[in-house]
Amino acid sequence: MSSPIIGVFDSGFGGLTVLRALLPLVPGAHYIYLGDTARLPYGSKSQTTIARYAVESARFLEERGSDLLVIACNTATALALPEIRAAVSVPVVGVIEPVVRAANLQHPSAEVLVLATTATVQSHAYLQHCEALGLRATEKACPLLVPLVEEGWIDHPVTRDVLRIYLEEALATCSPKAVLLGCTHYPLLAPLVETTLRELGSQAVVIDSAQATAAEVETHFPTSTPSSSDAATFECFATDSVEKFQRLGSLFLQHSIDQVQHLDLGG
Amino acid sequence: MSSPIIGVFDSGFGGLTVLRALLPLVPGAHYIYLGDTARLPYGSKSQTTIARYAVESARFLEERGSDLLVIACNTATALALPEIRAAVSVPVVGVIEPVVRAANLQHPSAEVLVLATTATVQSHAYLQHCEALGLRATEKACPLLVPLVEEGWIDHPVTRDVLRIYLEEALATCSPKAVLLGCTHYPLLAPLVETTLRELGSQAVVIDSAQATAAEVETHFPTSTPSSSDAATFECFATDSVEKFQRLGSLFLQHSIDQVQHLDLGG
Repeated sequence: MSSPIIGVFDSGFGGLTVLRALLPLVPGAHYIYLGDTARLPYGSKSQTTIARYAVESARFLEERGSDLLVIACNTATALALPEIRAAVSVPVVGVIEPVVRAANLQHPSAEVLVLATTATVQSHAYLQHCEALGLRATEKACPLLVPLVEEGWIDHPVTRDVLRIYLEEALATCSPKAVLLGCTHYPLLAPLVETTLRELGSQAVVIDSAQATAAEVETHFPTSTPSSSDAATFECFATDSVEKFQRLGSLFLQHSIDQVQHLDLGG
Repeated sequence: MSSPIIGVFDSGFGGLTVLRALLPLVPGAHYIYLGDTARLPYGSKSQTTIARYAVESARFLEERGSDLLVIACNTATALALPEIRAAVSVPVVGVIEPVVRAANLQHPSAEVLVLATTATVQSHAYLQHCEALGLRATEKACPLLVPLVEEGWIDHPVTRDVLRIYLEEALATCSPKAVLLGCTHYPLLAPLVETTLRELGSQAVVIDSAQATAAEVETHFPTSTPSSSDAATFECFATDSVEKFQRLGSLFLQHSIDQVQHLDLGG
């Protein structure tokens, strides 16, 4: 098999944490990342609008030759995965099922805590996926974490205080075996979430949707070159400011982004 | 003169701080508030798109009988005031000129500090208006303040810490006589901004765009009934979730909002 082409889609930059997790697992691939930054946040929009936006983006990635699409966006996964799968002819991997399955593998039928944005919590997509596997889930909206990450305050005293408040509130109502990071911004906070849980006396394991999703994608490319080759190439598209994408994108990917192309998907 | 009808427009809820400041100054009016919540944030969109959205909203408010429009949105004021004024036949008051004029009245040709969102700072609209009056302005982007206010953390230790960090960074480069709150969310933080400035050794006066804008609107209705009458009536329209508007709107208006009507302005 020649080098696979993997399309990765998010409404913004967060999905780059999934791309970062993918690079060592499927290192021989060519990656096309599309951030629909002009139309974010998806969370406040209707299901119909989100499905239309996500399908437009998915079709663009398929037309560019993608062999598989990763919907690295919780809102689009929660609200539009069936529409995206119907619109394209390549396999589509979302971010919710892999992390819920990973939690259930480690702690079958256990109590879990899902940290996510307000929009994702209101969709109850994690709750439904957890219940389908027999996991008991508590969902906790953490609206300040995305702006804190986007401010670059990854290991900052303020972020520690905010995380402690959110986790204290959540742990007052549940005793989870696993904490699921249900937003593609949150993998950058994974070490801080783990430290804070320990400080609060919880031994819950932190499960990162980026890692779980990347592992799921890896199963589609069993003949990929070994991780030492580091032969991946990638190109990035953004529907809004290319400069902001380069600056924030480098933070999320933890790798400099040399070139971002502007793409107009309409309004 | 019969009761005036005043239309107030914002992309979200923040403009309700302007409405709150208006109620005691023009108490006999009927207020129509429109929050284009389905299409926020305006800050990340192009000037053309913002102007189109703002003109649609302004026309709606004029068609509902408004005698005057308040553009209680910094982004729309910065990027679309000429287009809005050209599109309607009633007077239009934006949020930037009044607060800059108020600062210049108190401290002519002084050094001022403008706190605003990243999008407003990048537009340099405050800088240009300040320079036109001879004020020397430093603009400081405070991206975490809007999410902190929307979380309801108005007088919260985390908000104090964040504000202290932003103000310390700003005061390292300037010694302002006045601090302009260049975002309609920030009036809720005015007491905390003032306390923090004093703790940092600054005697700068805090000038609130909501108060300054309301005072400007008042000059258009000199025959209004006295402030004790409290006869104002208002109706609210939102282009997104009516429930979220009621919850957050009550926080900003500091008055319960009984009824919000949904409005579809298209995508």
